[in-house]
Amino acid sequence: MPDKKIPKATAKRLPLYYRYLKYLFSSGKKKVSSADLSEAVKIDSATIRRDFSYFGALGKRGYGYDVEDLMNFFSKQLNQEQLTNVALVGVGHLGRALLNYNFQGQNSIRISAGFDTNDNITNTILEGVPIYHIDDLEAQVEAQQFEVAIIAVPGNYGQDIADHLVEAGIKGIMNFTPIRLSVPDNVRVLNVDLSNELQSLIYFVQYSESIVDDGTE
Amino acid sequence: MPDKKIPKATAKRLPLYYRYLKYLFSSGKKKVSSADLSEAVKIDSATIRRDFSYFGALGKRGYGYDVEDLMNFFSKQLNQEQLTNVALVGVGHLGRALLNYNFQGQNSIRISAGFDTNDNITNTILEGVPIYHIDDLEAQVEAQQFEVAIIAVPGNYGQDIADHLVEAGIKGIMNFTPIRLSVPDNVRVLNVDLSNELQSLIYFVQYSESIVDDGTE
Repeated sequence: MPDKKIPKATAKRLPLYYRYLKYLFSSGKKKVSSADLSEAVKIDSATIRRDFSYFGALGKRGYGYDVEDLMNFFSKQLNQEQLTNVALVGVGHLGRALLNYNFQGQNSIRISAGFDTNDNITNTILEGVPIYHIDDLEAQVEAQQFEVAIIAVPGNYGQDIADHLVEAGIKGIMNFTPIRLSVPDNVRVLNVDLSNELQSLIYFVQYSESIVDDGTE
Repeated sequence: MPDKKIPKATAKRLPLYYRYLKYLFSSGKKKVSSADLSEAVKIDSATIRRDFSYFGALGKRGYGYDVEDLMNFFSKQLNQEQLTNVALVGVGHLGRALLNYNFQGQNSIRISAGFDTNDNITNTILEGVPIYHIDDLEAQVEAQQFEVAIIAVPGNYGQDIADHLVEAGIKGIMNFTPIRLSVPDNVRVLNVDLSNELQSLIYFVQYSESIVDDGTE
C-alpha cells in the first residue's frame, strides 16, 4: 500500500517506471539518475520526483536511485509476484488481437477466459485460453473469482455486459466500446477509445501551435 | 482554430463531446443542459464549462446549449468536413483488428494504407485497404501525403519505423508498441500502451482507497 493518498495520474505512471527499471536491471545497471529515467520514459524529472515522493524516500540526493531496490519496490506496489487473471468479453477481431497479445510484456497479467456468442468458437480453446458462451459469464466470473474484465463487444451491448459483470462482482472494467458505461461508484472503468484518441492526435497535429502541454498523456 | 491556447486535457475531451452531440442531434434533441451533458459523458460539469470557455461563449446561462450549433462548432474544430487518411504500419493481429475496425464511429478518419513485411499480405487488399511492403513506406507516405501514422509493429522495430516515418514527413504517431519513441519536438506521439493501462486499472482496483481522483482519464 502507498504511504499516503496518491493521485490517479501518478498511479498511471507506475507501470512505466517499473518496466524501465526491469529493463535497466536486466542490462546490469546498478543505479540510475532521475535525469536518465526522465529521458527514457519521456516524463519530466520534476514529475518523477513528485511521483516518487508519495512513496517516501526512494533515492539519495546526488546519488540517484538504486535500480534493484526501486524495481523491487514497484514490483511489490504493482503486485507483480502474483498472477492476475482477467476475463475477456467479446472475441471478435479486437478480442482475438488481445488474446494473441495477452499482455506478454507483463508476465503478471493474463487473460484466462474469453466469452462470446459465436458458436464457432465457444467451447474451444483459442491461443491457449478457453472461450465460454456468454450465457456462462456470471457463473464463470464467480467461479474463477475474476475482479477485472475487458469489454470488447460492439458498443450497443456494452452496458448490458457491464451490468452482468458488476452483478457477478467485477471491480474493474477495461472498456473498448465507445459507450460511457454507468457503473456503481466502487467499480473502476478504464476507457480505451481508439477513435477518440486518434481524433485528438489529429487535432493536436493540426493545431499544434494552440495546444498547451499540461502533462496529460 | 481555438480562440486561445487550450490545455491538452481539454483537447482530448473534444471528440467525446462531439460524439455525444451528434447522438443528441440524431435523436432530435434541440438543447442540452451542462448537467445532462455531464451525466452522459461522465465528466463533471465544472470541467465541461471550463473546457467550453476556451472557445468563447457557447451557451446561455439558464438555457443550456443549442445542440445543433454546438455540434457544428465542434465538427469544425475537429475538421470533420474533411476525410483524414492515416497510414498503418504493421498488419499483424492488432493491425488486422485496427483495419477491420477502421474508426467506423468517426467517419472522418480512415486507415487508407497498410505496411508490412509479410509477403502473404503485401500487394493485396485487406478490408478494402491496400497493403504495401514496408520498403515502400517512405515513398508512399510522401506520395499519399500522410501526416498521421499508426505503429502496430513488435516493440523492437518501433523506433526504426518512427525514424522512417518522421523522415517522410509524418507529424503525428499513434504508438501501440511499449517503446517510448524518440522523435523531434514538432512530432506528436500518442502512446496506447494496453499492458500499462490494464496494469494501472488492476492497481486502482486493489488500492482504490488510496487513490485520489485528479480528473485523469
